Amino acid sequence: MKNQPKDPIVLAYSGGLDTSFCIPYLKEKFKTDIHAVIVDCVGLSRPEKEKIQKRALYLGAAEFACVDGFPPLYDRILSYLIKGNVLRDRTYPLCVGSERYIQAEMILEYAREQGTRRIAHGSTGAGNDQVRFDVALQTGLENVEIITPIRDEGLTREDTTAYLAKRGFDIPSKTTSYSINEGIWGTSIGGAETLTSDQALPFEAFPSLKPPHELDDEPEELTIDFANGLPVAVNGHHMDASALLEALREFGRYHGIGMGMHLGDTILGIKGRIGFEAPVAAILYMAHRELEKLVLSQDQRQLKDNLADQYGAMLHEAKFYDPVMRDIENFFNSTQARVTGEVTLYACRGNLFPLKAASSHSVMDNKVASYGEEAGGWDGNEARAYSKLYSIRTQIYNKTR
Amino acid sequence: MKNQPKDPIVLAYSGGLDTSFCIPYLKEKFKTDIHAVIVDCVGLSRPEKEKIQKRALYLGAAEFACVDGFPPLYDRILSYLIKGNVLRDRTYPLCVGSERYIQAEMILEYAREQGTRRIAHGSTGAGNDQVRFDVALQTGLENVEIITPIRDEGLTREDTTAYLAKRGFDIPSKTTSYSINEGIWGTSIGGAETLTSDQALPFEAFPSLKPPHELDDEPEELTIDFANGLPVAVNGHHMDASALLEALREFGRYHGIGMGMHLGDTILGIKGRIGFEAPVAAILYMAHRELEKLVLSQDQRQLKDNLADQYGAMLHEAKFYDPVMRDIENFFNSTQARVTGEVTLYACRGNLFPLKAASSHSVMDNKVASYGEEAGGWDGNEARAYSKLYSIRTQIYNKTR
Amino acid sequence: MKNQPKDPIVLAYSGGLDTSFCIPYLKEKFKTDIHAVIVDCVGLSRPEKEKIQKRALYLGAAEFACVDGFPPLYDRILSYLIKGNVLRDRTYPLCVGSERYIQAEMILEYAREQGTRRIAHGSTGAGNDQVRFDVALQTGLENVEIITPIRDEGLTREDTTAYLAKRGFDIPSKTTSYSINEGIWGTSIGGAETLTSDQALPFEAFPSLKPPHELDDEPEELTIDFANGLPVAVNGHHMDASALLEALREFGRYHGIGMGMHLGDTILGIKGRIGFEAPVAAILYMAHRELEKLVLSQDQRQLKDNLADQYGAMLHEAKFYDPVMRDIENFFNSTQARVTGEVTLYACRGNLFPLKAASSHSVMDNKVASYGEEAGGWDGNEARAYSKLYSIRTQIYNKTR
Amino acid sequence: MKNQPKDPIVLAYSGGLDTSFCIPYLKEKFKTDIHAVIVDCVGLSRPEKEKIQKRALYLGAAEFACVDGFPPLYDRILSYLIKGNVLRDRTYPLCVGSERYIQAEMILEYAREQGTRRIAHGSTGAGNDQVRFDVALQTGLENVEIITPIRDEGLTREDTTAYLAKRGFDIPSKTTSYSINEGIWGTSIGGAETLTSDQALPFEAFPSLKPPHELDDEPEELTIDFANGLPVAVNGHHMDASALLEALREFGRYHGIGMGMHLGDTILGIKGRIGFEAPVAAILYMAHRELEKLVLSQDQRQLKDNLADQYGAMLHEAKFYDPVMRDIENFFNSTQARVTGEVTLYACRGNLFPLKAASSHSVMDNKVASYGEEAGGWDGNEARAYSKLYSIRTQIYNKTR
Repeated sequence: MKNQPKDPIVLAYSGGLDTSFCIPYLKEKFKTDIHAVIVDCVGLSRPEKEKIQKRALYLGAAEFACVDGFPPLYDRILSYLIKGNVLRDRTYPLCVGSERYIQAEMILEYAREQGTRRIAHGSTGAGNDQVRFDVALQTGLENVEIITPIRDEGLTREDTTAYLAKRGFDIPSKTTSYSINEGIWGTSIGGAETLTSDQALPFEAFPSLKPPHELDDEPEELTIDFANGLPVAVNGHHMDASALLEALREFGRYHGIGMGMHLGDTILGIKGRIGFEAPVAAILYMAHRELEKLVLSQDQRQLKDNLADQYGAMLHEAKFYDPVMRDIENFFNSTQARVTGEVTLYACRGNLFPLKAASSHSVMDNKVASYGEEAGGWDGNEARAYSKLYSIRTQIYNKTR
Repeated sequence: MKNQPKDPIVLAYSGGLDTSFCIPYLKEKFKTDIHAVIVDCVGLSRPEKEKIQKRALYLGAAEFACVDGFPPLYDRILSYLIKGNVLRDRTYPLCVGSERYIQAEMILEYAREQGTRRIAHGSTGAGNDQVRFDVALQTGLENVEIITPIRDEGLTREDTTAYLAKRGFDIPSKTTSYSINEGIWGTSIGGAETLTSDQALPFEAFPSLKPPHELDDEPEELTIDFANGLPVAVNGHHMDASALLEALREFGRYHGIGMGMHLGDTILGIKGRIGFEAPVAAILYMAHRELEKLVLSQDQRQLKDNLADQYGAMLHEAKFYDPVMRDIENFFNSTQARVTGEVTLYACRGNLFPLKAASSHSVMDNKVASYGEEAGGWDGNEARAYSKLYSIRTQIYNKTR
Repeated sequence: MKNQPKDPIVLAYSGGLDTSFCIPYLKEKFKTDIHAVIVDCVGLSRPEKEKIQKRALYLGAAEFACVDGFPPLYDRILSYLIKGNVLRDRTYPLCVGSERYIQAEMILEYAREQGTRRIAHGSTGAGNDQVRFDVALQTGLENVEIITPIRDEGLTREDTTAYLAKRGFDIPSKTTSYSINEGIWGTSIGGAETLTSDQALPFEAFPSLKPPHELDDEPEELTIDFANGLPVAVNGHHMDASALLEALREFGRYHGIGMGMHLGDTILGIKGRIGFEAPVAAILYMAHRELEKLVLSQDQRQLKDNLADQYGAMLHEAKFYDPVMRDIENFFNSTQARVTGEVTLYACRGNLFPLKAASSHSVMDNKVASYGEEAGGWDGNEARAYSKLYSIRTQIYNKTR
Repeated sequence: MKNQPKDPIVLAYSGGLDTSFCIPYLKEKFKTDIHAVIVDCVGLSRPEKEKIQKRALYLGAAEFACVDGFPPLYDRILSYLIKGNVLRDRTYPLCVGSERYIQAEMILEYAREQGTRRIAHGSTGAGNDQVRFDVALQTGLENVEIITPIRDEGLTREDTTAYLAKRGFDIPSKTTSYSINEGIWGTSIGGAETLTSDQALPFEAFPSLKPPHELDDEPEELTIDFANGLPVAVNGHHMDASALLEALREFGRYHGIGMGMHLGDTILGIKGRIGFEAPVAAILYMAHRELEKLVLSQDQRQLKDNLADQYGAMLHEAKFYDPVMRDIENFFNSTQARVTGEVTLYACRGNLFPLKAASSHSVMDNKVASYGEEAGGWDGNEARAYSKLYSIRTQIYNKTR
């Protein structure tokens, strides 16, 4: 089946300047209907959704739809980030970027239902998101036509603003000079100082977190229950994933948790720098890791960590659809069979600290061996013999230089 | 050459209860001279040293010596921890443990000079240090006799206290119920709650750091200069390694930086839990890593991180003398050729935050490519082509299930 | 429950000198019944079994049993070696050693049924098998008493021979000076020249394979069908695992396939050298890998290979019961979903060569892209653009030294 | 400095059809001088060189040059392949591909001397070599203009043959239907059956090696001496690298060593299949690895192998200029300090077998420990204690499910 010139174009809409520009531009250029579809991975409020819908229709969209992206985002990506404690470059909790896959897939699904294979997104030719969108849109069996006017024409914010103004559309420009991408898993902040490395991003640029010196919150303990590696309760209250993440975000924001800077490689090979707020990831990773230390073997943790590095790199670099990602997910699932228990953290003024952990699968405090002043299941002579044989391996190198 | 019964015994002395017990005990049991030798890796003050010397002689040591362990500790171990940002289990900056190798080596050197091969240490049969000491003492070419009364007899603190009391020695017991090991690189805190996982180690157990809720320090910026991966100046003041680490420790303690908990595997295979204070490592790692992000390639950073995991594990597990450790050190050295520049951090109330970094080797802000709103060295069509070919790899799997 | 002095001792019996010695020795020393149990992982013939049984009873065993070890050996270990193409040190296909786990487990199971917890094995204190046996016997919940007279008394072959002779037992000594361990997966040959590295093990020491210069077999093709990563048919004939491995062993022996030497580290840290014959592993690994290259992604193969290195090392080093081994097995299973198809090999005079492979999951010869003279799914300008952006990453390092 | 239209074009010439076409085509299209430069990595004979020169001038080249590529190829790449035993995908010894970097660099150097920055190569848009050439040409500081008519115009062999015929040039087409790339390190064979996976490449397609069933060579032993990881003598005769590799190639071809098939991913992400002959790599890797097993620690070998996997992948994938490659090379150099000694192999009818190895750095046969019937530096009770403590780690998991 070929894409037809009369088929409507489904636009991955965000409500921002670039994708707003796309509605009249594509309608005019391709002379066909534009369906503006927003895949909500943030948890938009009803008024926010209505505002975005109104703008899409005002700009000439033939159809508008808002799809809930959270369930697949959590099941297929965020749950594995938690199981693996996955970071990009051991720093960045992969805020925002992973949402692109889910957004592209749901846009593709919407297009299938509408019987069209023409899909537009507002990415530029500079960043990672263009690749993630393109890759995700091309994983389906059908032959998709990908339309990206901002990238193809090399348009700037000035260009798109001018285009809209010329046609009489009134789209309020943002008051901040930063490009802020908000998601449930974290928020990224780019622009101005982040385009270099030798300027500090001012604390005011962070939309939800205050810097430590402005915080005077009292210390608070937080207990999270995990079952098979996933959080199921906060302070004893069982919640579904969406509510639980929302609760942790609120808690974290209150205590100033999860502010960070990352400087790393983009898919195209150049360096990019970004500020981020990721309270939910910061809290869940610390709690989850503390529990894992109690119930997993050393080799399990070390191998998990290695695979998590690869998982994070590939997720970031638009390689989410490589089948090895499913294999790593199955590995993570296998390791989590014992990761059930509860962890208590301390939070105060930007700090998070692990207080204690308990699990019925704990391998500490058991009958085989206990650590401390007295040797448990062995005596001093056995320890001495162990130590002696342990050193054979290196002795033979040092004695035969 | 055989060890002779009349050869003096060189005791790795610390001034604490266990090694104090060893002086009269070994003297009585082996009927020979005891040389108490302390290898100072902490930076003891003159009064502290004199106090320890006095105690050794009071207990009957024939000789006392205090050797400066910092230079070899820094050159052979700490400098590589910095170059590699080395942590144990991605958490623990290897406080204290790595000093055992240097201590054993210098004790061995002292014994060589004295013409004896009989060496005693006060380790128990439960922990890691016994193995580190044994391994280090056995790496030399000579056949060393290792004497470890606490381990061999399975003695408890009660046993050694009773022994000393019975012989009329007055050794004041510590006022804390915790076993605290202090070093320049960090301090470890064990005992009581750390013997389980489900009890929180109270903040009062940490000897030098206050918890966040007790801190009201004003925010402060700190600039560190690195040359080939090692710190050379703080806030523009050039210092030698010893003074520099001391200055960072003071700064870090003032701002409550570097408090942590670790739960991991001991060499003997059981779980151990420990609290730690490591302000120097916390500061240096953050600054050093930030600079590396600016000047190293992604593959360099990722491979470095992997090798650092192995280096940390092996250092912790008494495998410091495996020749692969020298190879990893050479790898680290190779990567640090470009790691010259300066980094500025923000510190306040337990928090540390990277503000900015600059280097003449920076690969950001260069002529080849810059990240941001506009694509630099390529146009939108090239980006589209790249993105298209980039997706071939995963497409073929998804289209041929 | 405690082990009682009257409980019978279950002996892991092999029929060889050392375990034959154990029967009268243990009976005399412990004054209790000895149950000689052989766990057959080789596929012993009825006459071979009867001969071993006769010897055990002649030496005074109260009971004799022969248990079939192949099904658990294949299901729990060999099938994962195939899925992972697992080698020790990229050389040695883990002949023999992995059987120890299954033997110990089945001996333990036999002892449970007999209501005793006293188990004996004939290992010396020099090699790996003592550790594998000990570890496996201690994984159960019960507190097993492990009895190892050869190790504990440091007995030599001369000692055990003399003991048996003195008591009038006539056990024919072997005619070869090599210690040969035969299993379905491979045979190991040790002794004499292998105790050093600078002497060649003579080809005559290999029991089943002729050296290339003595072979004059005609070339033969062999086709193996795999389903989900495991072999199911040879030359179109479907067989169960036992028959299939037996058929490949015969084929491989005829063509002189799978002769090798390995020099590696023992668990105790010293070097050991060994000759081996492993025709079954050689054939299955080459065929299986060839099929994997056709259906797996590059990242799948590379990660599989890495995990296989770890799996092989841990299996060899008596770490089979670490839970990470189950996680790696689950990873392997996940990767094998597409590994269905057939592979044809050429065999002749010690050589094995992959001729061709076919699979309905092949990612070669598909509609997305094909390799060769002409670019498939892209044109020259797209390739040029890809190549240009591909080089950005390294350009920025070379242009900013 | 800009590239000028009048600047001559330097063509990476091979003497084959595609680059022969480029001479008149580029001369006509760009109306400037063409310098045909061949970088010899094979060891061309004088008549071969003269034949190629004659052809270049006949086709209208203004200048012809032949540069010796072997010294940099060996020093900068092949020597590291030997030190690392580097394979692509654990199969393919990176024949041919690595020569592209050296060829591009020397072409670039030639162009610099001629004061031009216009460089042409004959790659198509399908394979890996286009990327290797482009990347290498762009690593210099200057802004190179890369001219690739075959790729840019999407030309086929029919197109280029027709172009030359139309202009009256008589270039004899090859008699084989395979594309054969010969180098000192190995030869690759592509085309026809290799474009699929389910057809066997016939043995006749291999230009220098006979299949096992056609060989009747007598067995021969070969002794190679290594110094710091590199081969320095064959059968006691010291030779320079060029002569040594030539001698091994002759030996290997005589005994039919080093025939293989590889199926792997191209840089552009599709699968490619290729036959190869690599006798030199096969011989050197087996001998070098056998020596390493004798003198390196287990951790050294395992880590080396891991880094070699990465080195081989990056070398293949046009990432030779990433600075991490220099770090891995330094790691390899560090490990080779002890790799001095001699190894003897057996060769016969396609088979290669390691007989023995000796080194003054051997860690086998030393005073600390020896493997075999009797435990060396320890007694049975120490071995039992070691084994007991060794099992603690896994016991605690199995006893606390």
